[in-house]
Amino acid sequence: MLASSAIFRRQQFLIRSLGGHSSNIHRERMQAIKCVSGSALEADGQSILRAIVPTFDPFRYKGQAGKVAVIGGCREYTGAPYFAAISALKIGADLSHVFCTKDAAGVIKSYSPELIVHPVLEESYNIRDDEKSIISSKVLADVAKWMERFDCLVVGPGLGRDPFLLDCVSEIMKHARQLNIPIVVDGDGLFLVTNNLDLVSGYPLAVLTPNVNEYKRLVEKVLDCEINDQDAPEQLLSLARRVGGITILRKGKCDIISDGETVHVVSVFGSPRRCGGQGDILSGSVAIFSSWARQQNLATGDNLRGSPSNPMVVGSIAASTLLRKAASTAFGKKKRATLTTDIIECLGISLEEICPAS
Amino acid sequence: MLASSAIFRRQQFLIRSLGGHSSNIHRERMQAIKCVSGSALEADGQSILRAIVPTFDPFRYKGQAGKVAVIGGCREYTGAPYFAAISALKIGADLSHVFCTKDAAGVIKSYSPELIVHPVLEESYNIRDDEKSIISSKVLADVAKWMERFDCLVVGPGLGRDPFLLDCVSEIMKHARQLNIPIVVDGDGLFLVTNNLDLVSGYPLAVLTPNVNEYKRLVEKVLDCEINDQDAPEQLLSLARRVGGITILRKGKCDIISDGETVHVVSVFGSPRRCGGQGDILSGSVAIFSSWARQQNLATGDNLRGSPSNPMVVGSIAASTLLRKAASTAFGKKKRATLTTDIIECLGISLEEICPAS
Repeated sequence: MLASSAIFRRQQFLIRSLGGHSSNIHRERMQAIKCVSGSALEADGQSILRAIVPTFDPFRYKGQAGKVAVIGGCREYTGAPYFAAISALKIGADLSHVFCTKDAAGVIKSYSPELIVHPVLEESYNIRDDEKSIISSKVLADVAKWMERFDCLVVGPGLGRDPFLLDCVSEIMKHARQLNIPIVVDGDGLFLVTNNLDLVSGYPLAVLTPNVNEYKRLVEKVLDCEINDQDAPEQLLSLARRVGGITILRKGKCDIISDGETVHVVSVFGSPRRCGGQGDILSGSVAIFSSWARQQNLATGDNLRGSPSNPMVVGSIAASTLLRKAASTAFGKKKRATLTTDIIECLGISLEEICPAS
Repeated sequence: MLASSAIFRRQQFLIRSLGGHSSNIHRERMQAIKCVSGSALEADGQSILRAIVPTFDPFRYKGQAGKVAVIGGCREYTGAPYFAAISALKIGADLSHVFCTKDAAGVIKSYSPELIVHPVLEESYNIRDDEKSIISSKVLADVAKWMERFDCLVVGPGLGRDPFLLDCVSEIMKHARQLNIPIVVDGDGLFLVTNNLDLVSGYPLAVLTPNVNEYKRLVEKVLDCEINDQDAPEQLLSLARRVGGITILRKGKCDIISDGETVHVVSVFGSPRRCGGQGDILSGSVAIFSSWARQQNLATGDNLRGSPSNPMVVGSIAASTLLRKAASTAFGKKKRATLTTDIIECLGISLEEICPAS
């Protein structure tokens, strides 16, 4: 039963919070959570978006609206990290970096002059065994010197599965975690994390965004059972709890989001197209929205876990909601020919319709 | 005489099939075939398109609408594999891969972040003779690990004629054939196949898409005679039969399609522009449409050769019909300046006009 005591306690807590804090942010967050069935909470993503998207302020300077970094891009894959990084920018981040291999860097740079692309990762085929230790240290140092500037990392889009590269990325994740930098994990990052759960286990600033197959592997590994579609929200709740309360966004016909305490569903219809790359838009979007949600939490003095809502959950709901709206808008225009770049082009107008810039 | 006994038997079979199966798909396929002259069957490509293009289903996930791979792209040619791969995506495939040489990969990737481009092929100029055996095995292994995921291969766009590269591609084709993966052969792939007919001979999932010159070489090689334009459909029927019932789409003012059993003509006017690259749109389109036709056949329980229509023929008719409509639309807008990219941009709207997405 998902309408468990934890959920009930959380709802009670939210009601108390609403009574105690009358700010618009709190009221909107409260409105954003409503029960649509006996077993899951349908999120009002639009209210969440309006609550977390920062208002413009002429006194703000470059970087304050968010700086994200994508760790991904190798010899085989270059589109995925581009989609993630450019999506964060199109939503409103000020700066978007990509850390990838040398082979991928030139191509990713060529997709857009808006991105800052660092050719620092290395794959095994390119180096000798006796160089690995030195190169591994160098890769970490090259990323580490930037790390404190970032509001969020996205680990995994187009990362590939080269063992040496994944070892380096593990070190990067450990370093980010030491610095309390949020980490969104998707694609091949999920392959890495599923086989090394310690990288994220118990880290409240981690978000995993698995698709059907990635979720299946995660459930098998952590819960040692098959996917249970009948009680999907409850199984997700158990999974998130078992990995120490990290946030998991299970992608599907409905996106289901849990941090082991609550479960939210985003089921507004998006697009029937399933072209590759939409998951990358989502991971980049979670990065910037959760950064904003976190900024709001810090600004209003809520602590991370005791606030009306976990900012990583809030960011995930916001990202899912916006992606679905943008995909719907793009599909309305391009129909069967809709591709990921078309959806990215609709992020701005979709966000504007929900929370106008002025 | 094209109105041969085989054709007559096929028409009789179709009429019987229509009586026995009342599904819309069968009825539409039946309507799609009508006799326009004493010597050839003009295909009703629009009805075929409506019959095979899958309806959208929110429960489907990434990959289910088709995954195609193009084997092509070398130091000299990069546009052709891009055109083929992006055309499949714009029609509605979920994923589109390109396997090309290292020199071509960066450029093809830079054309679009939507494609997954694998820099795995090698040309002779880049390797020593004593390396060839090892590299050949590595190339095959690099492609083979992906092979089972694909619904169709397109072999040839921008492949070039380097002997070592073509030897590797021969091995890739043999492997695909072992796995029963359909293969569309165009461009330099036809050069390879014409000199190695065993690669496709007797393989019912092969489609060749020769232009005038490529067809001439094929006729000379297989039938040991000149092109006979007076009895073009009958000659094509003989050719397809002689190569063991593979499907051949002879491109020209009218496209003529035969699998050695039937002959269909697509003669609806497209565009008078003959800019390079239109054949690549066609090969990518045949790949995705024949995958869909095959899915429909499997879904309705028809076996491949005994169904009202061979899915490779159905896919070829659909591709020819859509390309002509898109070319016509593009020419209406761009006139003499019409290029292949303009036609690709018109694939979506052209398909939408024939079979609306919703």
